Amino acid sequence: MKIIYLDNAATTPVAPEVMEAMKPFFSERFGNASSLHFLGKQAKEALEKSRGKIMKKVNAKEHKLVFTSGGTESNNLALKGTAFANKDKGKHIITTKIEHDCVLNACKWLEKQGFEVTYLSVDREGFVDLNELEESIRKDTILVSIIHGNNEIGTIQDLKEIGKICQEHEVYFHTDACQSFTKVPIDLKKEHIDLLTINSHKIYGPKGVGGLFIRNGIKIDPLSHGGGHEFGLRSGTENVSGIVGFAKATEVIKDKDIKHMTKLRNMLIKGVLEIEDAWLNGPREKRLCNNTNFSFRYIEGEALMLYLDVKGIAASTGSACSSKSLEPSHVLTAIGLKPEDAHGSLRLTLGKDSTEDEIKYTIEVLKQSVDSLRKISPFGNK
Amino acid sequence: MKIIYLDNAATTPVAPEVMEAMKPFFSERFGNASSLHFLGKQAKEALEKSRGKIMKKVNAKEHKLVFTSGGTESNNLALKGTAFANKDKGKHIITTKIEHDCVLNACKWLEKQGFEVTYLSVDREGFVDLNELEESIRKDTILVSIIHGNNEIGTIQDLKEIGKICQEHEVYFHTDACQSFTKVPIDLKKEHIDLLTINSHKIYGPKGVGGLFIRNGIKIDPLSHGGGHEFGLRSGTENVSGIVGFAKATEVIKDKDIKHMTKLRNMLIKGVLEIEDAWLNGPREKRLCNNTNFSFRYIEGEALMLYLDVKGIAASTGSACSSKSLEPSHVLTAIGLKPEDAHGSLRLTLGKDSTEDEIKYTIEVLKQSVDSLRKISPFGNK
Repeated sequence: MKIIYLDNAATTPVAPEVMEAMKPFFSERFGNASSLHFLGKQAKEALEKSRGKIMKKVNAKEHKLVFTSGGTESNNLALKGTAFANKDKGKHIITTKIEHDCVLNACKWLEKQGFEVTYLSVDREGFVDLNELEESIRKDTILVSIIHGNNEIGTIQDLKEIGKICQEHEVYFHTDACQSFTKVPIDLKKEHIDLLTINSHKIYGPKGVGGLFIRNGIKIDPLSHGGGHEFGLRSGTENVSGIVGFAKATEVIKDKDIKHMTKLRNMLIKGVLEIEDAWLNGPREKRLCNNTNFSFRYIEGEALMLYLDVKGIAASTGSACSSKSLEPSHVLTAIGLKPEDAHGSLRLTLGKDSTEDEIKYTIEVLKQSVDSLRKISPFGNK
Repeated sequence: MKIIYLDNAATTPVAPEVMEAMKPFFSERFGNASSLHFLGKQAKEALEKSRGKIMKKVNAKEHKLVFTSGGTESNNLALKGTAFANKDKGKHIITTKIEHDCVLNACKWLEKQGFEVTYLSVDREGFVDLNELEESIRKDTILVSIIHGNNEIGTIQDLKEIGKICQEHEVYFHTDACQSFTKVPIDLKKEHIDLLTINSHKIYGPKGVGGLFIRNGIKIDPLSHGGGHEFGLRSGTENVSGIVGFAKATEVIKDKDIKHMTKLRNMLIKGVLEIEDAWLNGPREKRLCNNTNFSFRYIEGEALMLYLDVKGIAASTGSACSSKSLEPSHVLTAIGLKPEDAHGSLRLTLGKDSTEDEIKYTIEVLKQSVDSLRKISPFGNK
């Protein structure tokens, strides 16, 4: 069965050109980038070339790029690293109710270690209130962490305005850009971003690689101490093949792909909203080009997802990372959905290779599936 | 120029069969193991099959295997994770002076957070004194962390005896087995090991993957919080291709390879010790099958390494991870070497594909290089 993959926010396949770039670094140019001999220097060179390429992408002139194992580690490093290194200054952190689980759970752990966290609310579309943000900054605030493009509902926050507020109040500004990186332009300088999380496997690069941009001069403790790799901020033998692949992956999504995904996204939204008692979660504008998130009253998102799976359509209910949880999505409840409606949500996220035919087929299958499910639902008879 | 690779303790090339096993998981079976659709389940299945395979290798029946990004992360997780989760019980940790930098630097950071660390000394060959270990255990001791096969001088500690002592005194026992795993048999049950660190890229697997075995019931905080992956102990989308490669890599080194490396190691030791004022660091017996470490009086190890590099021989001075440091190796000073002798050390670590001819050539080049260097050394004229 041909699979229609509409779960690109969960992960993406490694692009052929990325695979090609990585290949030599597994078995031929396999040196440890810290070794001083020829093979080591060769690895080091590839590592630094990759670093430079990714730095250019976000105009990182006043920042270091520290390679990590992925977005989760980067976000944990940003939060715990600045918290531990700046606890003499203060113990207050500001974030939002719609962050990825890794930010929220790192914050919860920090609360146990004596830190205080403010969780900003968001409006119906998932946008942070800039006044609320400004008012919540205290003298002992050390960090503001706000997700750029939301992984569930696609809301894109205004980094420049947030960055300005943080700069004025002299608190560090971190943003998790795992979903937006290479899809939405990011400029670390113009947007006053101090710390930026990026990830490889969401942009057609390999799994197991991510990065954290850290403005020079920022005080941050490592999560992993050791041999002093990555400016002493993240020790461990560098995953050279993965990093080379990551750098190549930053070139995969082109302007035309963004236009293509935006077009298909709008087509999908239009088609799905023809279904009765269905609505779009998240905004129409300022939304990730590949994200859609729908709710269908009277049915369970998980049942719907499994119906689609049988028809060869790979979809998700909310975040893949929290797929094991039975709780309704914290993002959907934060934008005001009732728990039963949050349970009825479906996330369809496009890829650069998604086609019009796939979208048409998906809309048809969705209509039939919702219809069938409502017929057997105890609530479906309205 | 053909390269003679004698830096296998720093890293190894990915074996062809490992590459073959990994391949499908980059672009075809690329699903997120947390996704509930077909591609997700496929990834999850590969993940769990790999986990099971590696667990069998060390008789892990009372343990979980948590996949990480490598040995450094695993060691940091073992140390910081148990420290934070057990600080109500006590704040004392015991380790040795010859651990890998990642253990020592994690301990130093923990000291800043209010923990106390005892660094056990070792004898001339690098062995821990079991009486000293037992005497240093206090009521508030939570963890003993002792490296299995030393990465610089190859000393293999007696895990069973250490495990017995830790079990009797009810303190957790962690061992870093990055260098010994698949080269020395390990049995978590028989040796009473609570936490075991393993690594992929030292055994012909990919970089960026490691693991930590954790005995069921042990209290441990994650380093990376998030979506609850890996039993809630290490969040972040699983690096499926890397993990599949890691599992395959555990089959690469066979009994005949260990015999082969042991034979070449002994041949290398015999040849090198024909050089005047040269000696072997570390023991003759109970030594990693692929490790040699020599000191040559009156010369710098780094100069010697660069001489070898010109002749196509990839070697190391001490640990690759601390190659940037100008300090003499903490391992060599711990076994009693004077700083100037520690600076004159050279580590040559064999691989399964090393050949007799390579060893003969290396011995010849070494003899010439030591001779040349001593002629220009200010101390060389004795």
